[in-house]
Amino acid sequence: MDKHISNRIGVIGSGSWATAMIKMLTDNQSEKEIYWWVRKREDIAYIESYKHNPSYLTAVDIKIPFEHISSKVKFVFDNSDIIVLNTPAAYLKDALQDLNAEDFQNKIIVSAIKGIIPDENQIVGEYLTSTYGISIENIIVIGGPCHAEEVSQEKLSYLTFGCNDLEKAEIVASLYKSRYINTIVSDDILGIEYSAVLKNIYALAGGICHGLGFGDNFQAVLVSNAIREMEYFVEVINPGSRDINASAYLGDLLVTAYSQFSRNRTFGNMIGKGYSVKSAQLEMNMVAEGYYASNCIQGIIAKYQLDMHICNMVYQILYNNSPALKEVNILAQKLS
Amino acid sequence: MDKHISNRIGVIGSGSWATAMIKMLTDNQSEKEIYWWVRKREDIAYIESYKHNPSYLTAVDIKIPFEHISSKVKFVFDNSDIIVLNTPAAYLKDALQDLNAEDFQNKIIVSAIKGIIPDENQIVGEYLTSTYGISIENIIVIGGPCHAEEVSQEKLSYLTFGCNDLEKAEIVASLYKSRYINTIVSDDILGIEYSAVLKNIYALAGGICHGLGFGDNFQAVLVSNAIREMEYFVEVINPGSRDINASAYLGDLLVTAYSQFSRNRTFGNMIGKGYSVKSAQLEMNMVAEGYYASNCIQGIIAKYQLDMHICNMVYQILYNNSPALKEVNILAQKLS
Repeated sequence: MDKHISNRIGVIGSGSWATAMIKMLTDNQSEKEIYWWVRKREDIAYIESYKHNPSYLTAVDIKIPFEHISSKVKFVFDNSDIIVLNTPAAYLKDALQDLNAEDFQNKIIVSAIKGIIPDENQIVGEYLTSTYGISIENIIVIGGPCHAEEVSQEKLSYLTFGCNDLEKAEIVASLYKSRYINTIVSDDILGIEYSAVLKNIYALAGGICHGLGFGDNFQAVLVSNAIREMEYFVEVINPGSRDINASAYLGDLLVTAYSQFSRNRTFGNMIGKGYSVKSAQLEMNMVAEGYYASNCIQGIIAKYQLDMHICNMVYQILYNNSPALKEVNILAQKLS
Repeated sequence: MDKHISNRIGVIGSGSWATAMIKMLTDNQSEKEIYWWVRKREDIAYIESYKHNPSYLTAVDIKIPFEHISSKVKFVFDNSDIIVLNTPAAYLKDALQDLNAEDFQNKIIVSAIKGIIPDENQIVGEYLTSTYGISIENIIVIGGPCHAEEVSQEKLSYLTFGCNDLEKAEIVASLYKSRYINTIVSDDILGIEYSAVLKNIYALAGGICHGLGFGDNFQAVLVSNAIREMEYFVEVINPGSRDINASAYLGDLLVTAYSQFSRNRTFGNMIGKGYSVKSAQLEMNMVAEGYYASNCIQGIIAKYQLDMHICNMVYQILYNNSPALKEVNILAQKLS
């Protein structure tokens, strides 16, 4: 991949995280062309008029040329060599529906999505390789603790770029590094992606316990067990050397589990307070990522017969209708 | 140590944590006699009248016999086979001033103090062995994430009992286990004690960064680096196998670093906001543990020539008057 090719970048999605991505790519000093897929035409019109996203991170100046913004995903793909996928996991299939395997040829696909593709029960990397035949070496995942809101405020954040091909990870990382973004590269693409999925389950578990009245002492024990459970899991999925306490793993878990704004924590909290799964979803008017993640991870737990006590607790509560307090009490005996 | 001897317990100190200790020991079902050293006679009179501590965890019922409460530390020592030290580290020397090495003979000394003895620049275990000639096998440290306030509310908490002699750790742990206290034993007495000291420095560091305006993304990166720095340090001090993510290490760090009420965090926050060390101390009307800890740990860092970037940052700011923002910016380049 020569330098010329690598500077045409297409961002797919227009939520908070995608808008943060546009800002990071713009504020990075390297020369580049940014293309942007925005689903709704009225949002594009708003962005043209006001240079701001109408709904998300509305304070961020959008500095990319208007003619680079399109509601046609194929236009963005055709003009870009690096594609940054940035929709919620639940909407990725919809976003890509007009594309086929050919459109992904010779492109670097960067996934900034942390989650499970619902019907497929796959993490994004797996989904891309199995559906579009993309080689795993051409997929990069972005991990690390990073609330989009803090990017919009230019608060110093650290992103980790995971790719089997470290050179490609370096190239993509160099497009993001700026005065408020530090970058780290890693070859543990699977570990980073699964950790990002697991942390949503653990944040949900923390919410359940909080809703039941457990305190900060217990929460600290829960998280200290969660990171060990995460280490055990990713070591099975992708054996190798990693420090699970690096920011892409522990850092991401912490920023989610200790966030007051995490949807997974809020959802879990409602379950702990006695809401049914359905009523919590209706009340929140959305489905927390951890809900899908729990089902997907449980499949892997069953397949490999893993001892994952926290994930198992969440699954029993969400999918088998087991009383939350009973399950937390069972779990409490296994924590250390 | 036969069973008869092991059930006379003396608690030294009458703050929040000591009062929580009285409650935990009382609520544990095993038969025991509890003696309590309370420094002020007027507090003893209040406790006699109202069965509550006048100043700390005032909601906790004090159920021990009045004649077991004394302002004479020797009385408590003479009547106890297990001594639980529970003053702030800064006041331990004062509390023990009427005692000599003989008073410690044939006793199990349990340290529930997390901190540095100021003038001596020693952790409590070291201080006890060097000053009173207590054998390290007779010292047990209590670690783990445990706000005293949550003990008073009977919120499920986990304590770790560290002793070179695991059997003694088990005996003491059995005096604490109850419906809301789970216990863990460990032979890593030094690792647990130094981690409890280090975490105060890291909470202080988190406060400094918060005071400077750094956000939650950065905080998560800071903590994920702090736990790795802690692992590196305790591995030098006490080489051996431990999982640094166990609740006595990571859990204790988390409950402190993410607590809104941590004095270390508050102190750091004021430094980050521009207070001088002296004015922050005057404003808080106390000295945060992390302040002493920083000086002590820096001595060890120098002795072993360790790379401890976060501890070093805190030391440069607190003791060498280096500007906080400059030091955090230097640190930020070293985090991962």
